[in-house]
Amino acid sequence: MTGTAPTAAPVLPNRGRFRPLGLAEVRITGGFWAERQSVNATATLGHIEHWLEREGWIRNFDLAARGDLGHGRRGREFSDSEVYKFLEAMAWEIGRGGDAGLESRFRAVVRRVAAAQEPDGYLNTKFGRRGQEPRWSDLEWGHELYCVGHLLQAAVARARTRPGADDGLLEVARRAADNVCETFGPAGIDGLCGHPEIETALVEFARTTGDDRYLAQAALFVDRRGHGRLSDIEFGREYFQDEIPVRRATVLRGHAVRANYLAAGAVDIAVELKDAALLDAVRDQWRSTVARRTYVTGGQGSRHQDEAFGGDWVLPPDRAYSETCAGIGSVMFAWRLLLADGDPRYADLIERTLFNVVSTSPSADGRSFFYTNTLHRRELGTEPDADRPSLRAAASLRAPWFEVSCCPTNVARTLASLTSYVATADDEGLQLHQYVPGTVAYRLADGREPRVTVATGYPHDGRIRVRIDSDDDRPWALSMRVPGWAVRGATVTVDGRTRPVGPGVVTERRVWRRGEEVVLSLPVAPRFTYPDARVDAVRGCVAVEQGPLVLALESVDVAGVDTVDDLYVDTGHPPRLVDGRVTVRCRPVHQRDLDWPYHADPAPAPADAEPDEVPLVEYHAWANRGPSTMRVWLPTAG
Amino acid sequence: MTGTAPTAAPVLPNRGRFRPLGLAEVRITGGFWAERQSVNATATLGHIEHWLEREGWIRNFDLAARGDLGHGRRGREFSDSEVYKFLEAMAWEIGRGGDAGLESRFRAVVRRVAAAQEPDGYLNTKFGRRGQEPRWSDLEWGHELYCVGHLLQAAVARARTRPGADDGLLEVARRAADNVCETFGPAGIDGLCGHPEIETALVEFARTTGDDRYLAQAALFVDRRGHGRLSDIEFGREYFQDEIPVRRATVLRGHAVRANYLAAGAVDIAVELKDAALLDAVRDQWRSTVARRTYVTGGQGSRHQDEAFGGDWVLPPDRAYSETCAGIGSVMFAWRLLLADGDPRYADLIERTLFNVVSTSPSADGRSFFYTNTLHRRELGTEPDADRPSLRAAASLRAPWFEVSCCPTNVARTLASLTSYVATADDEGLQLHQYVPGTVAYRLADGREPRVTVATGYPHDGRIRVRIDSDDDRPWALSMRVPGWAVRGATVTVDGRTRPVGPGVVTERRVWRRGEEVVLSLPVAPRFTYPDARVDAVRGCVAVEQGPLVLALESVDVAGVDTVDDLYVDTGHPPRLVDGRVTVRCRPVHQRDLDWPYHADPAPAPADAEPDEVPLVEYHAWANRGPSTMRVWLPTAG
Repeated sequence: MTGTAPTAAPVLPNRGRFRPLGLAEVRITGGFWAERQSVNATATLGHIEHWLEREGWIRNFDLAARGDLGHGRRGREFSDSEVYKFLEAMAWEIGRGGDAGLESRFRAVVRRVAAAQEPDGYLNTKFGRRGQEPRWSDLEWGHELYCVGHLLQAAVARARTRPGADDGLLEVARRAADNVCETFGPAGIDGLCGHPEIETALVEFARTTGDDRYLAQAALFVDRRGHGRLSDIEFGREYFQDEIPVRRATVLRGHAVRANYLAAGAVDIAVELKDAALLDAVRDQWRSTVARRTYVTGGQGSRHQDEAFGGDWVLPPDRAYSETCAGIGSVMFAWRLLLADGDPRYADLIERTLFNVVSTSPSADGRSFFYTNTLHRRELGTEPDADRPSLRAAASLRAPWFEVSCCPTNVARTLASLTSYVATADDEGLQLHQYVPGTVAYRLADGREPRVTVATGYPHDGRIRVRIDSDDDRPWALSMRVPGWAVRGATVTVDGRTRPVGPGVVTERRVWRRGEEVVLSLPVAPRFTYPDARVDAVRGCVAVEQGPLVLALESVDVAGVDTVDDLYVDTGHPPRLVDGRVTVRCRPVHQRDLDWPYHADPAPAPADAEPDEVPLVEYHAWANRGPSTMRVWLPTAG
Repeated sequence: MTGTAPTAAPVLPNRGRFRPLGLAEVRITGGFWAERQSVNATATLGHIEHWLEREGWIRNFDLAARGDLGHGRRGREFSDSEVYKFLEAMAWEIGRGGDAGLESRFRAVVRRVAAAQEPDGYLNTKFGRRGQEPRWSDLEWGHELYCVGHLLQAAVARARTRPGADDGLLEVARRAADNVCETFGPAGIDGLCGHPEIETALVEFARTTGDDRYLAQAALFVDRRGHGRLSDIEFGREYFQDEIPVRRATVLRGHAVRANYLAAGAVDIAVELKDAALLDAVRDQWRSTVARRTYVTGGQGSRHQDEAFGGDWVLPPDRAYSETCAGIGSVMFAWRLLLADGDPRYADLIERTLFNVVSTSPSADGRSFFYTNTLHRRELGTEPDADRPSLRAAASLRAPWFEVSCCPTNVARTLASLTSYVATADDEGLQLHQYVPGTVAYRLADGREPRVTVATGYPHDGRIRVRIDSDDDRPWALSMRVPGWAVRGATVTVDGRTRPVGPGVVTERRVWRRGEEVVLSLPVAPRFTYPDARVDAVRGCVAVEQGPLVLALESVDVAGVDTVDDLYVDTGHPPRLVDGRVTVRCRPVHQRDLDWPYHADPAPAPADAEPDEVPLVEYHAWANRGPSTMRVWLPTAG
C-alpha cells in the first residue's frame, strides 16, 4: 500500500475503514507480547518442527513425492495443514527478523512440500493415491480444501514478508489454488469443504496475486454453503454451518472454529465485492455472538461433543470448551470487521481474546499447549505424557502435542504475526488498537508521515504514553481505543490537560510536534465482574478482572487446599493489589457430607470464620505450577 | 422359589436380604404405572416391531440365515440387541397376560433369530461372514458380547414366564452362552466387551439354568476389566470402566449405561460368590454416585460427548444427558443392591428414577421417546421427522426411533417387568418398596401366606392403604418404605393409632387378621428443593417436587411466553395445589439487551411487578404439547 512493497500483514483489504499496518510499520519492543513472541520464536517453532518430524507429518510429503505413500501415511486427515501453519509461522517470524537458520529451515520444508505436488496442482497427502480414497471423496471430513487454505495463507505470509523470494512457495500455492478453481468452479464439482478456511485464504490470495478468479471462487464457496450440500450428521448440518446460508444466519453456531473461519471469509468477500447485505449479516452475527455466546475470557464454544457453540447463554465454566483455535478464529473475524467498520468493540474482543485465550494456550516455556481453555477445573489432573501426542483435548495440564494438533501451530502463526494487529491507519492518521511498548510509523498518501513511540507497562500499568516522533505542519489524527471495560476512571492527558474519557475511541487531531505526548490512563485496578442473569451456569458468582486480564483462583495459591470450590468471595471488599498480586477476601464453606445433594433447606452459608485474603493468578498463567484446581467464576458469600 | 415354578422376575439371587416377588405374586391393578404398562402393551410393543421391521434389524437375521448378509446388513453394530430387548419385553408382557397374538408374534421373531445362529452357537449378524469383519475383532465397539447378554436376558424372561415353552429361545441362548464360555473362558481369548451387559446376563442365565459355568465366566469378565485390555480412546479407558478394576473404583464414571450395567453385574457376582469385598466396593460406588453425580430426577450422566458421568457435582441442567438407558441401568443396579442389602435408599432412587426418567422417555401415546432427558430446554425445538430415525439423541421433542435406538426397547422391557420391582419377601413377611394399587401375596417357607391389597392414589395422594387379605395365627411382618423425601409429616396408622414416622422403613410385625388395615400417609404437598452448594450449575435455584415427582416450568403453561428463563420464583411463598395443579409464585426479570454479558454491577433483580401464580407440569409429562421451553431448576427472586 505504501508503494511497491506489500504491507507485511495477513489481511490487506482493498477497501474499508482502516488500513492495516504490518511488520515494517509497527514494532513491538517489549512487554507482555514481546516476551511471548520471543518464546514463540526461540522455543515454540523448534518444538513444532520436532513434533512434525517425529509424527511423520512432514515426511508424508516425502513419501508422496517418492510414490511410497499408500499405507505409510501418518497423522489425521488434516495433518498437512499443520505443516502449512508452521510454514506460515516461520514466514512471519522471518519477516520479524528471524535468523538465517530459520530461513533455511523454511526453505527445506517448502522443498519437501513442493515435491509432493501433483502435475495438475493437487496437493494433499491423504487422498488420491493408490490405497487411498479418491480426491474430493469426503468433503464433509476430508479437509482437502481446508489444507489448501492454510497453504495459501502460508504463501501469502511469505509473499508479504519476502516478496519475490525464490523458494517457490507462492508458485506451489498458485497451482494448488488453480486446481481448486478448476475443480470447484462454476462448471466443476458443486461442493464445498466441511471445514471453512479456503474462503478467507482464497480472498487473501486474490489480494496478493491480484487475480480475481480466486475471489470469485471464494464467493462461490460461501454462496454454496447453507443449503444442505453436506451430509446431515449426528451433530446436525449446523456443525458445518451448512443449514442456513451465511447471509441469513443471525448468530454463530455449530463448530466454533468453522463458524469463525467462515465468518472471516464472508467479511473478506463482502468487503471486496461491496456486498453490504453480507457485511450486515455477519456484523449482526458477531454482535449476537459476543452478547450471548462468548465467555468472559473471550473464548467461544461451550460444547465438548462437537466443539461447538452452545445456545444463547449456555456458557458453563466447567468443561468450557473454548478451543484455542476458536479464539484465534474469533480474532481473525473481529479483525476483519474492525478494518471494515472501525468499531472499537472489535478491538475490545481481540484484546480480551489475545490475553485470555491465545496467550493461555502455550505454557510459559512455549513447549506445551492447552487445546481447550476451561474456566473451572475441579479435579487435580496429571501431567500429560511428554513423549506422545495427547489423545484428549481436555487435558488438565498443557500437553506437548495432540493427535489433532491444530492449536500449537495456530498459536505460533498468530504470535509471529501479532504485530500486525496493533495499529491501523486511515487518510487522517493513526489508530492504536492494542497497547504495546513499541513504535508505529506510516506514510499517508499525501506524504504526511505520522510516527509515534508507545511506552507502557500495560496491562499491569494503565498509563499508555504516546510520544510523537514526527514533525509535520499539517494536522493528523491520533486515535486511541478506550476499552469497554474502562467504564469509569479513564482519562487522557494532552498538553498537560487531563480529561475523563469513556469507552470507545479518543481522537486527537492537531498539528503534532516531535516530543509531544498523549497519555491515556486506563483504570486497571482489579474489579469484580458480574454475569448477566441469563448465564445460568454462573449465577451467584463473580469474576475478577484487571484491565483486560481475567483472573482466577488456583489451588496452588491457597495453602493446604486441593479444591478451590469451597471458598466464597466476600464482595463487600473489592479486590486489591497486595505486593503486586490481586487478592480477594474469601470465606470457607464447610460442606456437609450427604447421601443426596438436594434438600428441603437452602445450602449452608459461608462460615463466620475469619476470612482470608487469597491471591489470584492471571488466567493465562494458570496451570504452570503443576496439577491444580482452578476457577474463574467465584461464588459469592451471602 | 415357591416350589417348581420359577418366580417371574428378572433378578433371582440365590441369597441376600430380600427375595423378589414376580408376576404371580404381585399385581398392579391401576394408577400411574398400570396406565404406562397398558400403553406399553397396546402401543409401544407394536411401534417397536414396526420400526425393527422397517429398519431391517429383524430381517438381518433372515439374511444371515439365507447366507445373504454380506453387504445387505442394516443398522448399527448393536441392532441385534434391540431385537432381543423386544423379545424380552414381549416375554414379560406375555407373562402379564398378553393376548395370544403377542405369543405368536414372539414365536415368529424367535424363529427368525434362531435360524441365524451358527452351528457352533455364535449368533451376531454384524460379524464373521464373508464381507464382514471377523468375529471378536472389535471388542471395544463391536458389542458382540453385549448382544449375547440381551439374548440371554430375553431367554431368562421367557423361561421364567413360560417355563418349558417349546419356542426354542432358551436353547438358542444356551448355545450362544456356551459359545461365549468356550471362546472367552480361561483358555480362550483374554478379552472383554467394550459395553458391559454380558456379566449380569450370564449370572442370571446361571441362576435360571443352574449351570455355574456361566457364573464363572461372568466373574472372569468382571475380573478382566480395569486393567487396560481395551484400547485407550479419546474419552479415556474410563469410558469402558477399563481403567481401574471394579473392586478398586470408588464411584461410577465413564459411560453411564456401561457403568451401571457393569455395577449390576458386579453385585450379582458378589452375591453369588459371597464376595463381600466386591459388594462393599460397588455399594460405596453407589453411595458416592448418588451423593454427587445424580440429577434430582435420578438421571445419571451429564456429558453429551461420551454419554458419561461428569466429575463430582458437575450436573448442568441444560443439555443434561441423563440417558434413558442410564436411568434403567441405575434401576437395575439399585434393585440388585436392595435385594442384597435391604437399605430403603436403593428403593428411593428406584422410585425417583422410574417416575422422572423411565416414565419421562415415552410420550403419552407410547410411540415416541426421549433418548436423553435434559432438565432445561432453552429453545423451542421442532418436531422430529416421524418418518425416519432421528440422528440426534438430544431431540427437543420425543422421536419415534433413533439410529441408536436402545432406549425404546429398554423402556418397553422395563415397563413390562415393572411389577417385579414393587415388593419383596423375607422369612418374616413382606416388604413394600413401591406404592401401586394392587395386590401382593406370597407363601413363606413355613407355610404362612401373607396377602395384602394396596389402595392408593399415589403419587398424587400420599395415603397408602394396605388391607390384609389373609388370616394366620402366626405373626408376620409388613414393612413399608418411607421415602427419603418424606422428611417431615409422614405417619402410619394401625389399629386406629397414628404415629409419626421418618424416612426409612416402618415395620409392623403382628398376627394379622383379614380386613385389618395399615395406612401410611406420606407428605406429598408440593415443596421446594434446594441444591447442595457444590452443584455449581444450579446455584441460586430451586426445584419443586411433589412426593417422588419432580416438577418443571414449561412455556406452554405461561401465556404469551416462549422462554421460561425470565421468570424467578418467590420462595417466600411455598408451592401450592390449585385445581389439582401445583403452582409457584413467579416474578419476571426484565432482561437488558446488551453488547456484552459481563458487567461491573450485579444483574438486575426481578421486577416489582405483580407476581404471577404459574402452574408447573410433572417433569415426566413435559413436551407432550408441542415445542416448548422448560426448566426444572428455577432461579429464585431476591
